[in-house]
Amino acid sequence: MSKSSTTVSKGELTRACILDAAVQQAALAGFEALTIGGLASQTGLSKSGLFAHFGSKEELQLAALDEVVRRFIETAYQPALAAPAGRARLLALFAHWLQWTRRSGLPACPMMSALGEYDSQPGPMRNALEREMRRLDAAIADNVATAIALGEFSGAVTPQQFAFETFGIIASCYRSRILYQDPESGTQAQLAFTRLLAAAAGEAPAGTVAPATVRP
Amino acid sequence: MSKSSTTVSKGELTRACILDAAVQQAALAGFEALTIGGLASQTGLSKSGLFAHFGSKEELQLAALDEVVRRFIETAYQPALAAPAGRARLLALFAHWLQWTRRSGLPACPMMSALGEYDSQPGPMRNALEREMRRLDAAIADNVATAIALGEFSGAVTPQQFAFETFGIIASCYRSRILYQDPESGTQAQLAFTRLLAAAAGEAPAGTVAPATVRP
Repeated sequence: MSKSSTTVSKGELTRACILDAAVQQAALAGFEALTIGGLASQTGLSKSGLFAHFGSKEELQLAALDEVVRRFIETAYQPALAAPAGRARLLALFAHWLQWTRRSGLPACPMMSALGEYDSQPGPMRNALEREMRRLDAAIADNVATAIALGEFSGAVTPQQFAFETFGIIASCYRSRILYQDPESGTQAQLAFTRLLAAAAGEAPAGTVAPATVRP
Repeated sequence: MSKSSTTVSKGELTRACILDAAVQQAALAGFEALTIGGLASQTGLSKSGLFAHFGSKEELQLAALDEVVRRFIETAYQPALAAPAGRARLLALFAHWLQWTRRSGLPACPMMSALGEYDSQPGPMRNALEREMRRLDAAIADNVATAIALGEFSGAVTPQQFAFETFGIIASCYRSRILYQDPESGTQAQLAFTRLLAAAAGEAPAGTVAPATVRP
C-alpha cells in the first residue's frame, strides 16, 4: 500500500515537472510549439517516458491548458472568493487577475496565446478554451448580477456586457505589459476598470474620478 | 521595355497570390504555422519559386505581416480619414476596424494571432508588431488630442488611456465574434465604445445612454 502510493506520488511529481515546463513554454511560444521531443530534452526525460504520461501532442496541449486554468483558479479566482460577492469580489478578482501570471512565475499569459492560436481552429483545444473563457465570464456576470441585487450597481447594467468589457481591459493590459513593456500597464488597466465600475454604479464617468485603491 | 514591365507585373502577381494565401493561413493558424512548403502546395507553385520571392520563413512571415497592415490601412484607416479629425474620425475608425477582417476576406484577425505568438518572443516579428500597434495607438491618441482641442472631449482625458481602452474593446470583440461566435459581439463593442466616448466627453455614463448609430 505505502509502496504503491510512493510510486503514484513519483509519477505525479514527474507529470507536474513536465507540465510546469510545458506551461512555461506555452506562455512564451504558444501551445502549438509544444512537442514531446522538445519537452523531453528540456526536462531530461526520455521521449518514451513522456509518452507514458501524455499519449500525444494534443493530450499534452490539453493537459497544459488544464494546468494553466488550475493556476489561474489558485492565484486569481480563489483568493477573490475571500471578498463578499458583488462589487467587492469583482474588484478583488480584477486585482488578482492582473497579478496572476507573475504569481504563477509565467512570463506572459498562456490563455492569451491560446486565444490567438485556437479561436478559429475547431478541435478539443478550441473547445477547452471556449469552455474556460465562458466559465470566467459567467463568474464575472454572476457577481455583476449580485451587485445589481445588492443595489451596488444600477439595474441598467448588463452582466454579459460587463464581462465583455472586463476581458477587454485585461487583454489590452497584456499588450501594454508584454509587447510594450509599459510600466504603466497596471495603472491603465485599473483606471479603465474603475471607470467601468463607476459607470455600472451610475456614478460620474471616470477621468473625473480618482481610481479606487485596490489591495491585491 | 514593355516586355520587362510585363515580367515585373507577373512576378508581382505571383507574389500577391502567395501573400494572399499566407495571410489567410496566418489568420487561421498563426504566422508560426506558415511554411514555404505548405504555401507551395497550397498555391501550386514550386518551393524554389517561393524561395525566389521569400528567401526564408522569417521573410515570408514579415511580408505577410506587412500585407496584413496594408489591408488594415486600406479597409479601416484610410476610409476613416474621410471623417473630420477628432471625435468623428475616432467613431469612423472604430466602425471600420470592427469590419476590416470581413472586408479583407479574413476569417479572423491575423494581428491578434501575431500578438499571441510574438509578444514575448524577441525578434523581427515582435519588432514589426510593436511598431504597427504603436502606430495605430498614436493615430487614435492624435485624434483624441484633436477632440480635446476642439472641445469635443474633456481636458481630463488621457489620449494614451483612450487608445488602451479602444484596443481592449476590439480584442474582446474578436473573442466574442471568433471564439464564441456571438452575433452580439458588434453590438457589445459599439456599446462599450459609446460609453468610452461619453466618458471622454464628460457626459453621463452609458447604460443610461443609447448607443450612437454608426454608418461604416
